[in-house]
This record gives sequence, structure tokens and C-alpha cells, in this order.
Amino acid sequence: MGDHSVVPLANDSQSGSPVTIPTLRWEEPPEGPVLILLDQTRLPGEEIELVCTDVQALVDAIRTLAVRGAPVLGLAGAYGVALAAARGFDVAEAERQLASARPTAVNLGYGVRRAAAAYRAALEATEDPARAAQAALDEARTLHAEDAAASERMASHGLALLKDLVPGGGLRILTHCNTGALVSGGAGTAFAVAHAAHREGLLRRLWVDETRPLLQGARLTAYEAARVGMTYTLLADNAAGSLFADGVVDAVLIGADRIAADGSVANKVGSYPLAVLARHHNVPFVVVAPTTTVDLSTPDGASIEVEQRPGHEVTEIASPIAEAGSGIVLAPLGTQAYNPAFDITPAPLVTAVVTENGVASPVTPATLAALVSID
Amino acid sequence: MGDHSVVPLANDSQSGSPVTIPTLRWEEPPEGPVLILLDQTRLPGEEIELVCTDVQALVDAIRTLAVRGAPVLGLAGAYGVALAAARGFDVAEAERQLASARPTAVNLGYGVRRAAAAYRAALEATEDPARAAQAALDEARTLHAEDAAASERMASHGLALLKDLVPGGGLRILTHCNTGALVSGGAGTAFAVAHAAHREGLLRRLWVDETRPLLQGARLTAYEAARVGMTYTLLADNAAGSLFADGVVDAVLIGADRIAADGSVANKVGSYPLAVLARHHNVPFVVVAPTTTVDLSTPDGASIEVEQRPGHEVTEIASPIAEAGSGIVLAPLGTQAYNPAFDITPAPLVTAVVTENGVASPVTPATLAALVSID
Repeated sequence: MGDHSVVPLANDSQSGSPVTIPTLRWEEPPEGPVLILLDQTRLPGEEIELVCTDVQALVDAIRTLAVRGAPVLGLAGAYGVALAAARGFDVAEAERQLASARPTAVNLGYGVRRAAAAYRAALEATEDPARAAQAALDEARTLHAEDAAASERMASHGLALLKDLVPGGGLRILTHCNTGALVSGGAGTAFAVAHAAHREGLLRRLWVDETRPLLQGARLTAYEAARVGMTYTLLADNAAGSLFADGVVDAVLIGADRIAADGSVANKVGSYPLAVLARHHNVPFVVVAPTTTVDLSTPDGASIEVEQRPGHEVTEIASPIAEAGSGIVLAPLGTQAYNPAFDITPAPLVTAVVTENGVASPVTPATLAALVSID
Repeated sequence: MGDHSVVPLANDSQSGSPVTIPTLRWEEPPEGPVLILLDQTRLPGEEIELVCTDVQALVDAIRTLAVRGAPVLGLAGAYGVALAAARGFDVAEAERQLASARPTAVNLGYGVRRAAAAYRAALEATEDPARAAQAALDEARTLHAEDAAASERMASHGLALLKDLVPGGGLRILTHCNTGALVSGGAGTAFAVAHAAHREGLLRRLWVDETRPLLQGARLTAYEAARVGMTYTLLADNAAGSLFADGVVDAVLIGADRIAADGSVANKVGSYPLAVLARHHNVPFVVVAPTTTVDLSTPDGASIEVEQRPGHEVTEIASPIAEAGSGIVLAPLGTQAYNPAFDITPAPLVTAVVTENGVASPVTPATLAALVSID
């Protein structure tokens, strides 16, 4: 096990002010540099920070989902390389460990590679490990800033789209899973758009799907909504149909884990049923994701392999998410569960894909490719 | 609070044999008559019986969902009136209390009215409260027997319909909530049809929606499926969309809490999204319910009052379902939840309504009224 310290964090939720939640931050106390993570497995009950002084601690945090979400995993990887370099550990070994902590997380490997490349280029140029470590840290900070800037641009494009699709404000937005500051160097993806609407006084209510089985909506999105002072209401995923039928959803905003070249969107399981409901009720269904999520080498939805997760996530419930056998048992012992992590929404059900480069609508191979090619 | 005793029940689950679960039974020990309920909030972990010696105990059991499900609520209402009469309580007051315990449950009021009418007719004829109480009990028992017979006929009509809609067997049926022996004087409604298919070797798999927030699918339907030896698989409600997209659902079978004259079906929240998905994927969506569930005095779906249940059912999870504050907290404190008990599926999305009198398909005011008028 790596070296973890646990630091209770002051809770700002009393103030209701829109604080920036420190999902991940670099600090340099006298004892040496550290990467500090908000432990997401403890939310919303406790705000606890994990202080990582070495790469193993960070790898543990990634594996246990203390830090999670595509963009922020890229940052964790990059800062992890910087930490190894600054502390004088073996950078190549750190790269290997970090990149394999969650093998399917594309962004993690991307962040690791960017910081490691900066480190090696600087080491070759200067032959000074300290300057090379600084170069890795600078690259991690650049990635962090890029991510925050992409969030801002997605929020701006997404808000403009909403004003267009639903004139008059008073927006009632339904969202699924967690797509806010906890998964991003900035304000996130879909949540960032809702947040932008909130800041302009245009958001009447955020409807938050609890997002079974892992309850990222109840645990994390509700937490983020409360922290920024939004009016929000939580619902069991089953109740979304009633909201559509009652005409109280003006738009659905979700993120994406991967978008294929044909516009098929892989996202948290439960997204596709929302897309079908939204179409049935003529409500815009909007996907918000950075262009790095668009994978032109995946031709279509059928080519996306959907991860099947363990059945105990459905048959038991635990807080925090823990090992099999440790939760409250919800079903008879021996019950088999079907537990796909994601589902696939075909492009014809997606009203628009919002990226940092602008909006694809209608969602076609051509409109998507055009956005990705913008530099 | 009423007078509840709790009696541990011998557990037959080791045998795996299709035992008849004593959902509800009337007994007459020397201390006076009692209504004994299997406490469904404790399943599947424990088989515990609740002994109701007065109406308030029964009302509590109805409100906390210790006893639940449309047909069995009718029996509970009728036996509740019989209990009040036999114990010498105010029958009119018992009627009022029982009928208002759950506003959407049409069967509850029906059972109450039948037993009360029998009581009053006998009292008027004989002026003997003891004989009137016996008349109320006889009426409850008649209703109980009618219910068991209705289950058998629904199972038979439903199976014939399935053979017609999905020739060739190998049925993969998706169901929602709990509609088996636990909710009925007999084998249930939708579950009874799946059970009939299973007994004829035609059921390949029962897909069991967990049915948030109260998890009747995970807790009760999985329990019933395991008890009768079906092949079943549990899923988070969110994963149903993936099953439809993969083409592995041949039919959806659900129960109903109330069916309006226009064929609108009120059933457990999450039913309507399944109906929309089923239509999108051209899969039959079949409602199985006794004719007592058809309420010709409710003209349409908009006239059905949908019960809003407490938010803590969404923001906390408990096993057994318990009072606010005693569960695992899933969401930030102070989180507001939208928690409708039911949703409304319009008739055009319903392929067929199966009753003990036969099948209405297409579902129209005329086909429904014809079924109800059969004696």
C-alpha cells in the first residue's frame, strides 16, 4: 500500500455559495510535493481528502474509484507522473503503474503519456532531473487548464443551444449519472451546461436521476447541485417517465464515455431509455462531451464493447461502494444479475452533441468529423 | 399505533419446492380472531409474520407496505372489516380508515365495500352483530376464493395469448415490480402467467426489474422466482433498455393497480417507460389484472390520482424498509425527492389487458367494458 493521509475537509455546504470543489490539487508543503484528492467514495456523507505522496497511493485511489471520471483521470495520470519525477521515483515505472490502474480508461493513459513525454524531452534537453520534473508538472497543469477551458466552452455552446431549443428560460433539465466538477479539471460536461444556465438565472430545476446501480446521481450530482445552490430534485430512474408525461422536462443533458464515428453515444446505463422517452415526448436529448470522447476509429455503436460489471452492484448496496459480500443484501442469495455499465444511444435519437469546438446537430458522421477536425 | 405481534415463520426456502406462501390468513385463536400477514418488508432476508388484532395494526401494515399489491389489498380490506366486526369495533370507522390507507389502490376500497355491505345486509336482516360479523368474514373468504380462481384463469388466458403473440416458446419475459403469490389470494397476475409458461417448459428466462425505489423486484419477485425454480436474472431498471436493444425481450408482462375506462393503466412507477421502450422495439406489452382492477367510474388516465410517497424511500435505503433516518443515506442531507408510487400508461401503448374473463386487445373502452360486464 502507498502512503495515504486522510485530512477532513472544511464543509462549505452551509454557505450555499458556489465553491469550486477541489477534486484534485497539487500542493508543495515543506515535506515535499503531494497530490491531494477529494475521496469520492465517501461522498456525500463525508468530505475527506486523500493525500498522495507516492504513485502507489494514487494507483490505489484510482482503483478504488476514490478518483473517477474520464477527464479527471487524465489529470490524475499526468500529476502522478509529475509526482514521481518530483519525488525522485522511477518515472518509467510510475508510467507503467498508472497507465494500467484502469486499463479501459483512455484519458488516464493520455494524461500519463503527455506528462511523461514532457519529462523525457526536458531531461534530454537539460540533463537536469529537477527541470524535467518541473516540465512534467507544467504539462499536467497545462492539461488541467485545457480541461477547464474545454468545460467553459462546452458550457457556453451548450447554453446557447438551450436558449435556442427552449426559448424563454425557466429550464427544467433532466440529467443522468455525474458529469460535474468531480470528473473534470473544470466545471464538467453536461452539468457545466446546467450550471451555466443556473448562473444566468435560467435554470428552474435540475432533475437528478439517481443512476442505479452505483447511484452516482444521488451521491455525486445531488452533492454538486447542492454545493452550487441549484434547485434540484432527486428521483428514482423509474420516475423519469412520469416527468416526461407531465411535461416538466424541457431538455435532457447527459455526458458520454465514447462517441462512435456514426454518432452512436456510449454512456452510463439508463441513458438510452431516456433518449427513447425524450423522442416519444419530443424533448431535446443533448450529449455534452469533449472532442476527445469522439472516437472516429470506432465506426458505429455495434463496435463499442460494453463492459459488464459484477452482479453484486445490483444484488447488494453499500456505502461507500465496497467489495462483494459487504453490502446490504437486496435480493435472494444466488441471484444472477445483468449489469452492463453503459448503453448505446443511436445518433437519430440524439438532438445534438455539444463539444468545446461547437455543436453537431443533426448528429451525423459529417457534422461530428467537422467538429473533431477543428484545432 | 395498533397492536402488532411478530411471529417468526418456519423457512421453507431450503427445500426449493414451490410452496404456497401464506401471504395473508385469518385465524381464530382463543384470544379472538386475528389477521396474519407475511411481512413483505422483511423479505427476502426473513420470513416474519405480523399478527393484526385490530384495524389500526392492519392500516399500519398497509401503509408501510408490509402487505401490498392490488388483489391482496382487496382481501386485506375485506378481512379488516371482518376483524372490526368480529372484535366489536366500529365497522363504519374501520371502513373509512381502511379505504383511505392507500388512495390509488382501487381493490382495497372494493374489498372493504363488499365485506361492509355483507355486514350491513346481515345486520339489517338478523339484528345480530355476531351473525353480521360472520357474514363479513364469509364475504372476505368468498373474495379470497374468487381471487385464487381469477389467478388461475388469468394465467390460462395469458399463456394462450403469449403462445399466440410469440409462437415457438423459449419465452424471455420482462417483468416489473411484484405480481405473484405475495399480492394475491392465488398465484398472482403477471407472475402467474410467467409461472404457467414455466410449468409448460415455455419460459426461457424471466428478466426481473429491481423496481426502485422499494425494490419489490429484487426483494420479492426474485424470491418468488427462486421459490418456484424459474431461470431468472435481476437487473437495475436502467438496464432494461439494453435488453430491448439486444432483442432479448419477447414480451413485457406487468400487473395493474387501476385501469381506467379508457384503458389507461396505473401501475408501479417505471411501467410507463417500459411501455414506451416496448413500443419503440415492437415488443408486446401485456397487462394482467383481474376485472376488479378495471374502474369504469374513472374515465381516463388524467383522472387517476397518483400517490406521492416519502422522499426518504429514494434518499435512503434500508433493509427492511424502515422509518426515515434509519437507512443508509444515499444522497446529501436535505435532498428533496420526487417519488410517485405509480405512473400511467395510455391504452395505445398496451398490447392487451388479460383478465379472468378473457383478453381485451386492442385495449379500448368497448373491449374493456365487455370484459367487465361478463359475469
